Amino acid sequence: MAVGMDFISKLAIENTTKLVLLVADGLGGLHSGPGDETPLEYANTPNLDALAHTASLGEHDPISPGVTPGSGPAHMGLFGYDPVEYIVERGALSAAGVDFPMEEGDIAARANFATVDSSGNVVDRRAGRIPTDKCADLCALLEGRVQIEGVEVFVKPEKEHRAAVILRGKGLSGEVCDTDPQATGIPPAEPAATDGSDAAKRMAGIVRDFSTQAAEVLKEEPRANYMLLRGLAAKPSLPSLCDLYKLHCCAVATYPMYRGLARLVGMDVVETGTSIADEIATVARSWTDHTYFFIHVKGTDSAGEDGDYDRRVRVIEEMDEALPALLDLKPDVLAVTGDHSTPAILEAHSWHPVPLLLHSRYSRHSRANAFNESECARGNLGRIPAVHLMPLMLANGKRLQKFGA
Amino acid sequence: MAVGMDFISKLAIENTTKLVLLVADGLGGLHSGPGDETPLEYANTPNLDALAHTASLGEHDPISPGVTPGSGPAHMGLFGYDPVEYIVERGALSAAGVDFPMEEGDIAARANFATVDSSGNVVDRRAGRIPTDKCADLCALLEGRVQIEGVEVFVKPEKEHRAAVILRGKGLSGEVCDTDPQATGIPPAEPAATDGSDAAKRMAGIVRDFSTQAAEVLKEEPRANYMLLRGLAAKPSLPSLCDLYKLHCCAVATYPMYRGLARLVGMDVVETGTSIADEIATVARSWTDHTYFFIHVKGTDSAGEDGDYDRRVRVIEEMDEALPALLDLKPDVLAVTGDHSTPAILEAHSWHPVPLLLHSRYSRHSRANAFNESECARGNLGRIPAVHLMPLMLANGKRLQKFGA
Repeated sequence: MAVGMDFISKLAIENTTKLVLLVADGLGGLHSGPGDETPLEYANTPNLDALAHTASLGEHDPISPGVTPGSGPAHMGLFGYDPVEYIVERGALSAAGVDFPMEEGDIAARANFATVDSSGNVVDRRAGRIPTDKCADLCALLEGRVQIEGVEVFVKPEKEHRAAVILRGKGLSGEVCDTDPQATGIPPAEPAATDGSDAAKRMAGIVRDFSTQAAEVLKEEPRANYMLLRGLAAKPSLPSLCDLYKLHCCAVATYPMYRGLARLVGMDVVETGTSIADEIATVARSWTDHTYFFIHVKGTDSAGEDGDYDRRVRVIEEMDEALPALLDLKPDVLAVTGDHSTPAILEAHSWHPVPLLLHSRYSRHSRANAFNESECARGNLGRIPAVHLMPLMLANGKRLQKFGA
Repeated sequence: MAVGMDFISKLAIENTTKLVLLVADGLGGLHSGPGDETPLEYANTPNLDALAHTASLGEHDPISPGVTPGSGPAHMGLFGYDPVEYIVERGALSAAGVDFPMEEGDIAARANFATVDSSGNVVDRRAGRIPTDKCADLCALLEGRVQIEGVEVFVKPEKEHRAAVILRGKGLSGEVCDTDPQATGIPPAEPAATDGSDAAKRMAGIVRDFSTQAAEVLKEEPRANYMLLRGLAAKPSLPSLCDLYKLHCCAVATYPMYRGLARLVGMDVVETGTSIADEIATVARSWTDHTYFFIHVKGTDSAGEDGDYDRRVRVIEEMDEALPALLDLKPDVLAVTGDHSTPAILEAHSWHPVPLLLHSRYSRHSRANAFNESECARGNLGRIPAVHLMPLMLANGKRLQKFGA
């Protein structure tokens, strides 16, 4: 029996307790170190290990055993939303991540600057990862020059080759396939309608028009001479985390997409620096005005995706060094986990369950001496779906009333 | 994917095996003892510990992770009913708990004798916990004196200041709010209709009439000069456990509410003494006529709610001492668990998973040397929703046929 978000929401009560969710993106790993250890086992983490002793340890499945999640659904689960029911499509996520306030009816797409050769084939889907400054210049150029009848066009830079495109107009549709072919050596995909509606057919034409005009504007660029689109989507309709659970939510993240996701569920997104210590200093500055803090650490995932074991170890150690400053704030409830696993030997997100540490005055003591995959797999919190984390955090913060007499 | 009660019921077959569910109310605890132990870890329990070695150990979630249950839903889960679907409201539970056979159309309420001061404010919601004898005398007085046109009034004593009020008549409604204000220093709440029906509006008047007449009857009482009502409810409609699973069910409980709950699901409730040894002797006397025994031990929960670590330890030890007499009966299946956790440091029910021991000839051996939260958290039965216990008990008693060819 799984109870839903509505059920938990009805039990939620006001309190002054502070809850902190520290997400090290892609935290779960696989044995691949010098002594067959995972990065989390190998890393020197005295602070996390000490905390683990009086915390509860377990693992969460982001979606369901065997299912590898994208970052969107993985975070939705951690925030307590059923990730299969509440879908945030890529385009909407990108728009939110660049601070673009989508309006009802807008269609947003994730956009990549790419390199296309003289025969029209994609040779680099990331345009050599152009600098972010360059991306911003080209986005401004495109936004000024692309003209589509009855459609307002926004092109906003994200990071390196990444951007968001938002199309505003009457009767637009998100039912058009990606133009990103997800491979090199072949041309961009044709923007085709993915349902039989007139709106989708018209939209396919608009996307084709955008792509053609963009290529014309960019044609002199040595690398970024094309813009690929994917994940066309309308603004999702999500209940606010703050309303659902009577929390004042604050998000601290260095990477735009996670800020965007947090904003979509109603969190206040605050500006922060680039290091984990900066992020925790930002939490400290926001402490009095909020009761729920989402801290996102990106480095663990990036290192995993690059297959870089050593860098992953260093990011974990950086997080551990930053932890005492977070503990000094005396959060009533602290959860440390990942949104999914990103084992270095897979160089990608994976389906493996994710280590989870939950600490409060009322967490049953694991009595473990380390925080890692092995200890969590035999931990006293067991193996739970990610969506159960939010109710557990609320319960430990005495923010849920009793069900039934 | 969870299968429901109907699914399990269709697999149920007759057998002569005897199943015993021993519920130590609020059994799960938290570290708070001399050496950071839970009461269950600290208590001297040689019999439970020996049993644990060849039993399967695990934990159950009464409802869902993070959700703290009331006693009603917590027991419904242990009996195999989805506690979110099958709700027994407080009033109906109280009526059943005083052996009152509710009829269709009756409305029952949980009632508390209370003390109201000369300005009409509640000063003690429990009337100084008057003795049960006094409660019985006042209930008889009220039942004889309160007269409501077209309504038959029953007032039945429960324990100390607690009683049940049952109103019988045509077209009554349970849609009236509590008169118990759940606080002192303010007057009793006005009985208002909680839906827009004529029946609810009429019922609000009936409840007001009852309250006014009761106050008049009790006006000379020094402490019990008012009666507060809550949880007005009709008789719930529940399928019988005996029919569902082809069992002859027997309940042994010292505390009225649990007897009432057992009766609502179709168990025979037998008279018993006050100690745990008395309860097990009662089981022995009922052994030949029944195949499922629910034994309820109240002391663990009361001690937890009072924050009394030492008393909780003593009740657990009393249960352990009484266990050999139960084992002498050679039950085919024995489950020992709690309905929920009641950690002494919380002094209340909690959301923590509950230790569970399942012993039968077919239970996989845990090989643990103790029965407690830590061993159960890493036990071989894992962490399961409480509703799965009944199918497991039936299976271990060879009372479920194979599903599919």
